[in-house]
Amino acid sequence: MTVRVGILGATGAVGQRFIQLLDGHPTFEIGALTASKASAGKTYKEAAKWRVSTPIPEDVAEIVVGRTDPADVPDDIDLLFSSLPSGVAAEVEPQFLEEGFVISSNSSNDRMAEDVPLTIPEINGDHLGLIEVQRDNRGWDGALIKNPNCSTITMVPTLAALDEFGLDRVHVTTLQAVSGAGYSGVTSMEIIDNAIPHIGGEEPKMETESRKLLGSFDGAELSMHGAEVNASCNRIPTLDGHLESVFVDLADDVTPEDARNAMENYPGIDLPSAPEQLIHVFGEDQPDRPQPRLDRDRENGMQISAGGITETPQGLKYNCLAHNTVRGAAGASVLNGELLVEEGWI
Amino acid sequence: MTVRVGILGATGAVGQRFIQLLDGHPTFEIGALTASKASAGKTYKEAAKWRVSTPIPEDVAEIVVGRTDPADVPDDIDLLFSSLPSGVAAEVEPQFLEEGFVISSNSSNDRMAEDVPLTIPEINGDHLGLIEVQRDNRGWDGALIKNPNCSTITMVPTLAALDEFGLDRVHVTTLQAVSGAGYSGVTSMEIIDNAIPHIGGEEPKMETESRKLLGSFDGAELSMHGAEVNASCNRIPTLDGHLESVFVDLADDVTPEDARNAMENYPGIDLPSAPEQLIHVFGEDQPDRPQPRLDRDRENGMQISAGGITETPQGLKYNCLAHNTVRGAAGASVLNGELLVEEGWI
Amino acid sequence: MTVRVGILGATGAVGQRFIQLLDGHPTFEIGALTASKASAGKTYKEAAKWRVSTPIPEDVAEIVVGRTDPADVPDDIDLLFSSLPSGVAAEVEPQFLEEGFVISSNSSNDRMAEDVPLTIPEINGDHLGLIEVQRDNRGWDGALIKNPNCSTITMVPTLAALDEFGLDRVHVTTLQAVSGAGYSGVTSMEIIDNAIPHIGGEEPKMETESRKLLGSFDGAELSMHGAEVNASCNRIPTLDGHLESVFVDLADDVTPEDARNAMENYPGIDLPSAPEQLIHVFGEDQPDRPQPRLDRDRENGMQISAGGITETPQGLKYNCLAHNTVRGAAGASVLNGELLVEEGWI
Amino acid sequence: MTVRVGILGATGAVGQRFIQLLDGHPTFEIGALTASKASAGKTYKEAAKWRVSTPIPEDVAEIVVGRTDPADVPDDIDLLFSSLPSGVAAEVEPQFLEEGFVISSNSSNDRMAEDVPLTIPEINGDHLGLIEVQRDNRGWDGALIKNPNCSTITMVPTLAALDEFGLDRVHVTTLQAVSGAGYSGVTSMEIIDNAIPHIGGEEPKMETESRKLLGSFDGAELSMHGAEVNASCNRIPTLDGHLESVFVDLADDVTPEDARNAMENYPGIDLPSAPEQLIHVFGEDQPDRPQPRLDRDRENGMQISAGGITETPQGLKYNCLAHNTVRGAAGASVLNGELLVEEGWI
Repeated sequence: MTVRVGILGATGAVGQRFIQLLDGHPTFEIGALTASKASAGKTYKEAAKWRVSTPIPEDVAEIVVGRTDPADVPDDIDLLFSSLPSGVAAEVEPQFLEEGFVISSNSSNDRMAEDVPLTIPEINGDHLGLIEVQRDNRGWDGALIKNPNCSTITMVPTLAALDEFGLDRVHVTTLQAVSGAGYSGVTSMEIIDNAIPHIGGEEPKMETESRKLLGSFDGAELSMHGAEVNASCNRIPTLDGHLESVFVDLADDVTPEDARNAMENYPGIDLPSAPEQLIHVFGEDQPDRPQPRLDRDRENGMQISAGGITETPQGLKYNCLAHNTVRGAAGASVLNGELLVEEGWI
Repeated sequence: MTVRVGILGATGAVGQRFIQLLDGHPTFEIGALTASKASAGKTYKEAAKWRVSTPIPEDVAEIVVGRTDPADVPDDIDLLFSSLPSGVAAEVEPQFLEEGFVISSNSSNDRMAEDVPLTIPEINGDHLGLIEVQRDNRGWDGALIKNPNCSTITMVPTLAALDEFGLDRVHVTTLQAVSGAGYSGVTSMEIIDNAIPHIGGEEPKMETESRKLLGSFDGAELSMHGAEVNASCNRIPTLDGHLESVFVDLADDVTPEDARNAMENYPGIDLPSAPEQLIHVFGEDQPDRPQPRLDRDRENGMQISAGGITETPQGLKYNCLAHNTVRGAAGASVLNGELLVEEGWI
Repeated sequence: MTVRVGILGATGAVGQRFIQLLDGHPTFEIGALTASKASAGKTYKEAAKWRVSTPIPEDVAEIVVGRTDPADVPDDIDLLFSSLPSGVAAEVEPQFLEEGFVISSNSSNDRMAEDVPLTIPEINGDHLGLIEVQRDNRGWDGALIKNPNCSTITMVPTLAALDEFGLDRVHVTTLQAVSGAGYSGVTSMEIIDNAIPHIGGEEPKMETESRKLLGSFDGAELSMHGAEVNASCNRIPTLDGHLESVFVDLADDVTPEDARNAMENYPGIDLPSAPEQLIHVFGEDQPDRPQPRLDRDRENGMQISAGGITETPQGLKYNCLAHNTVRGAAGASVLNGELLVEEGWI
Repeated sequence: MTVRVGILGATGAVGQRFIQLLDGHPTFEIGALTASKASAGKTYKEAAKWRVSTPIPEDVAEIVVGRTDPADVPDDIDLLFSSLPSGVAAEVEPQFLEEGFVISSNSSNDRMAEDVPLTIPEINGDHLGLIEVQRDNRGWDGALIKNPNCSTITMVPTLAALDEFGLDRVHVTTLQAVSGAGYSGVTSMEIIDNAIPHIGGEEPKMETESRKLLGSFDGAELSMHGAEVNASCNRIPTLDGHLESVFVDLADDVTPEDARNAMENYPGIDLPSAPEQLIHVFGEDQPDRPQPRLDRDRENGMQISAGGITETPQGLKYNCLAHNTVRGAAGASVLNGELLVEEGWI
């Protein structure tokens, strides 16, 4: 079975990651690429300033880029991936949805909308049921699903694993890589020999998206998880891989060993881009792991890493890490697309 | 008035900072430098691989380095600064104390001893009274005082300022500069394009030293502050300046404005190396400050910076920063030395 | 004596350096600041995103920024410094010159024009005589002088010192700091863990400007120096300070000691911003110097450093370094301005 | 056919690369690992602090490490790879050679010995004939061949390709990655926001090894190439990949197009680890390539990249790049080992 896919915003940093990840994909075949007017009409090779270290797949290089407009996307496209800037996405995604397209989107608009599934397949695939609500509400033939922000997705799998112990409060501080801001988002003069204790809009995203992802869906309505989540976000001079320091208050008494088992045994999912094991946990013999450069590429960048699990007076502290432009962006959307296919929405 | 001072461990990274900070000091005059056997007998210029960006003061360059042994330090030295490795200090400092020397030490040994003052002059200068207890206990003619760890000192002034609001719980995550590990402590292959979520022994130091610094001394005994402090420590690729993300639970309802006022108005101290204002606070118009490279040198590296103060469900979150080898090491010891003089202990 | 000066393009990276360097200047007093339309009418504090680590001088902070137009610059301004983008400067500088303003410009346009002095005061101050030629040619009441490109100025003083030995061929490779491209010129994703072997237009600038600077002026015409100069320019992950590896073919047999003496004794100039000694030379006991971070700030960033002088079959090789936004940009223009005053052109 | 190989100095940075590169090798099978006394007797997993981003191959992890002594290496080992420190290698390699072992060594000792082949298989495989001379001279049953220094091997293939145009003089400046100094060779405090214009002993290596590699072997004696080679070596803050700026004087008139053709068409070799094409050349549409991070991994790190080819008054200038610990160290030794097998020396 082959699913024809398109990429909205194909020339940007996340767009390039989509193309890299879809190269050789068992199910998805790229059939359309869109970008801004300036790029439309050019071949992808001409339009994109390719910055990924693997070469442009040859067949993709020659695809002629269209405008980001439903009129420019052929009808045989079954699934769209979107990595548009959120302002553009807020305007354009509805146009595609009205035309009946299904979109797995990485853009941040509408993530917190009550009728839009925000999903990590291993965590809350059942939230896809919201698509019915969405279609009722909006009158769309298509469907819109979102993946969370890169900083959120790094932490939520570990919280999901610990939820059985009575997750109550979370304090998380991030050490985020520059690629999270896009290719030109952070200048070298800002970040060399430096760190920046602020990423616009990031902290509220982590605080609300986490509770939606961990929330429960009763078939009609979604309830947010009751935990209190406090986030502080920082940019540091790493290229890829967000590292996060997490403190959790838990209702139960939990040993680091319990927590480790819960994380390592958290069930994965059988989808082409999913890692064999969702969370890799480093033990106390490797207290200095995970590290961004050494661990971001585990299982093709789709595995979460955790380590340094230690008891605190009211719970635990630990570190976690994920590849922010793979597991945290393009890879997350691709995995959501695979879930849509698996669950019969496409 | 001139006080003759000596530096134990004068050739190391912190030792070099001592020499830089004491150059032109109004009261302190360097009269003795010690180092390991390999260096003893050489001029300081020959013995030290000087790595500070300002040149070696000319008079210091020609001082002949002695062994770190009381026999090699002249009697006219009134005050010793120590930046020895803690293992060495634990063995050697008592030898000097028995001979009657007064030591302002940056080494981590004995910081948590019940009869050793751990002081930041602006915060808990009254703890110097412990010297009497110490002399009674140990039979020393000299006196030993310690300054806290660089990561501790970055945060504690802000906690002290907020203590009036009922400080209850603290969650702090550090983003620490490589100089904190000494000149050769972090290799370039470890840290370029990376971060390390572990610094040996650092988290317990922050958790206990903070409570001692904020504790109260009744003239006979020291009580630890009752707050719960949870720390997670990380190394990042910056040269100097520790940045920390802090969450505090407070008993009172406190606005960011209240907190800012409390920090900005926290009383300073009138000592030669003290900053005019202890804590500089960046307002909401500069949410991306403090930053290590831009703010570590405020007031000759002796001022603490804070910013990003924001309400949370149970208190506040904010960031703080200090120069780790100035305010957090050599400068802290020098300031403690100035306090000893001011208070008549020398 | 006080000279009222204005800065064209005052909000950019070099503009900010001008303001920092002019703070406390014995002769120059800032009387006008210009920027693009978007900034005009605002106070400097509002208009500039200040990124220098020292604070904005208080009196400058409140100056209202004008447009970069002669109509917006008061008549009592005696001297203008220009750090406009070269395209803008090519259009706007002539307008100011026609109005009679004297400009010491860092912009690259017109540097190689036959009637425009390109000067380093210590090297070729006599080229100022070209101003007469310029006035005859162009009918300007004002005067335009230029300082060279930051990569050129790093090397040329060392070549000038060696010229007495018969300078014949030069091969220079640069390792340039990111600040040379302006605040947003190099993104972090381009340069972390990387180097870029190309800086647009830089190599021809070094090859031609060097020969003009070393050329001779007979009172009427300028002759280029006859040496062959070959340049290869690279960007590396340093913030400030260009390091350059130079090979020179010399007609005479020259020892490293001869070369060192020639460089160290090359005559300086008595101007407020000039370093006491033009070139500091590291000897064979410090073969790993100069280094950008350790040596860029020598003599307030105005001194050139050299080191590693070694014989080669046909001459010598050595390294040299200068602070690219001080000696290589704003400081170079200020020094040229001081020369204009000294020589009576203002 | 399977060849049993051993690695001398298996726990170091290059040793780890050997193990990574030999994992899945079609011919070579690891049968022995040696290290210092402190590691002997431990499994490799215990002895090595593994820092490569791919995991330790499972079968290698359990090999018990021996001392670096012929007595600890089984007789069935056909080929040894050596990445010992040169001082150690100078003492130990002869002991193995006397016992009849064949060594493909990356250590710098004996590279310039008249009877030791210094080879890059694509360039001068015929120099293996020196083994006969070596055996005559030294009375060894074994054989010792060396690969050049990492900075040398980056440039020499491009020089070999240009030699047909009358290679006369070379001026090369390197921008070398920190991994070239080993895991702890460059501290973070030395290199962040910095560059170091000196690498001990590196420049003479480049100047002499290049001429030996390009020299000719008449079956009895090796003649050095007559070109003059001048090198200036710098360390910069990149992890892997040496970038070099090269100027060549050529007897013939050569266009960049001629040079590009010569480089791209320079014959490769049919060995398992050899790249399909020895030199990849970037054209004038990509003047900012090669770059270390983007290009060091081409063809598994075994391809040389070149770019920026430009005419100069007496020849050409260009840039070249290679992965210093793959093509420049472990990969070079493995390829030499493959050549030894292919040519029947094993």
